[in-house]
Amino acid sequence: MSETMKQVVLARYCEGTPVPEDFRVEEKPLPEPREGQFRVAHAFNSVDPGTRSRLSGGDSYAAALPLGKAIDGFSVGTVDASANEAFPVGTKVFCAGGWKTHSIQTGKGFIGKLPDVPGIPLSLWIGVLGVPGLTAWFGLKRVGEFRKEMNVLVTSAAGPVGATAGQLAKAWGAARVVGVAGSDAKCDWLKDTAGFDAAINYKTAPDLAAALAEAMPGGVDLLFDNVGNAMVNRVLPMMNMGGRIVVSGQVADYNLAPEDTPGIRNTKPFITHRVRMEGLVVFDDAREFPEALDGMARMIADGQLKYAEERFEGLEAMPEAFCGLFHGENFGRRVVKVGAE
Amino acid sequence: MSETMKQVVLARYCEGTPVPEDFRVEEKPLPEPREGQFRVAHAFNSVDPGTRSRLSGGDSYAAALPLGKAIDGFSVGTVDASANEAFPVGTKVFCAGGWKTHSIQTGKGFIGKLPDVPGIPLSLWIGVLGVPGLTAWFGLKRVGEFRKEMNVLVTSAAGPVGATAGQLAKAWGAARVVGVAGSDAKCDWLKDTAGFDAAINYKTAPDLAAALAEAMPGGVDLLFDNVGNAMVNRVLPMMNMGGRIVVSGQVADYNLAPEDTPGIRNTKPFITHRVRMEGLVVFDDAREFPEALDGMARMIADGQLKYAEERFEGLEAMPEAFCGLFHGENFGRRVVKVGAE
Repeated sequence: MSETMKQVVLARYCEGTPVPEDFRVEEKPLPEPREGQFRVAHAFNSVDPGTRSRLSGGDSYAAALPLGKAIDGFSVGTVDASANEAFPVGTKVFCAGGWKTHSIQTGKGFIGKLPDVPGIPLSLWIGVLGVPGLTAWFGLKRVGEFRKEMNVLVTSAAGPVGATAGQLAKAWGAARVVGVAGSDAKCDWLKDTAGFDAAINYKTAPDLAAALAEAMPGGVDLLFDNVGNAMVNRVLPMMNMGGRIVVSGQVADYNLAPEDTPGIRNTKPFITHRVRMEGLVVFDDAREFPEALDGMARMIADGQLKYAEERFEGLEAMPEAFCGLFHGENFGRRVVKVGAE
Repeated sequence: MSETMKQVVLARYCEGTPVPEDFRVEEKPLPEPREGQFRVAHAFNSVDPGTRSRLSGGDSYAAALPLGKAIDGFSVGTVDASANEAFPVGTKVFCAGGWKTHSIQTGKGFIGKLPDVPGIPLSLWIGVLGVPGLTAWFGLKRVGEFRKEMNVLVTSAAGPVGATAGQLAKAWGAARVVGVAGSDAKCDWLKDTAGFDAAINYKTAPDLAAALAEAMPGGVDLLFDNVGNAMVNRVLPMMNMGGRIVVSGQVADYNLAPEDTPGIRNTKPFITHRVRMEGLVVFDDAREFPEALDGMARMIADGQLKYAEERFEGLEAMPEAFCGLFHGENFGRRVVKVGAE
């Protein structure tokens, strides 16, 4: 075992769209677990657009990450040193590990043993079977109060949250599921592989409002939004009576100063159509994770839930993998292989 | 009995802030009720800011009122001719009567006999005990999921909806109730008569954000908004975890074209603070009106629920009374006396 570990830290606060120079890779001595702790050797780390909200310094709503600190993220790996009986060496876990090769865990917070489901690739536990999939599940179910026969519109639909949300909605009996994505390849995947009823390339649609109206002639009962204010503003006039807007992510707005952020102006439907808009952070639903993970793992095993994944190699690739999320270049979940499986 | 009635009709579509010239008073033969119908001689009609959303012609979300049609509104009066056994001559009722001296009713829709509560002035049944009070009740209770110890911020707080919402919140155990209003006289009334913990004159506060923060140091658990997007945008950063925004009215936005409407930009708290924003139209709660009306009538009888009312005289005064709502000149519920009590 190597005597050092690596981690990616915040080198300077991000201004606007993050660039790799905002980050720095550090090497440091491998920490030993103290009583009650254990050490996880990460196999895969995730990069998540929501992380951006903590990288601007002082006045963010989410607690700002201090300079020099390792970036937060989700990891899957194997316990390789332990002073905690519940997590002996060799245990496979998912955890809030961060952009590191190894992390010290206490067994509290966001940590868990991987369920024993055969045929599930390890990286999925920080993908469809991690925070993105859980966000889709609880966003639809708890926040969106999903019911059969709803018309569901999903934005950033080829991303790991959106793709899962659309497929869950379809599997649960949605009348129609339409996705918005940023390339023809993504739209083809949504229709041909993920079973969406229609998909719209927002970058090439000559008139996005018209394309949305054509793809969703019966209006929208549930908007599952991962994009932000401009998209919500555009879809609000299409909302049906009692419509629900699930604020799952705001990837287009994370990098913007408040004065540059698009405003939601079309708010009349909140009254006329009794629209409800609500956000979520999936950790609020932690007690129900096992049920959701079990449900989604079965769907994957049955071939009912498809996923796309992009792999990067090596911890040093994490800044690049993260920054690319804000250029729409990713296709599916981005994970970075940082150690042995 | 006179052989004619009067009504106010829409003479032209409103552009921006309504002016009296948008309306026309007409006289026409008094209609006779047919089988199953009855006629109500209105004593009081209300003017409601929400009516504005139907007066712009074509592209409003609410069904647009055609030119030449009588304006909608609420009325209280007495049955003066009847071909409906359930509503004999002499019955006192509230109804969706409109800006008229008389209306024909069928007993269906928004109509009901006045509960027999002694000491309640007739006009209250279209005020605190009408749609405004009911909107406050169900906005807090159902949409806002009011709980004890909440910090409640009410905008347009001296209006009939806001004043009732604030007092109900206080009576139900809010930790703190703060109102925003447009004059020192209104603020004094809110504090001295209606029992608000604090009130802010938004027209004279040198820094409204600072004044709000000072008046509500513990943040806002429930924003009961009657004003619109600019106010929601301002208060969003003050929302506590799990905060609720009740979209009760949008009086500052009704007159604006979509491109001129302020945008809600500060949407990050939807995720970071799990904020929920939802609108209401109180008729959805019609089945529970009797319980709410009974509750509020008792509070009025006990002196626990205060109200302010401005009376205008004569049907011809309705356009002026309505248009003034958009200049913030009203203080409490505006009702127009159009016939005998």
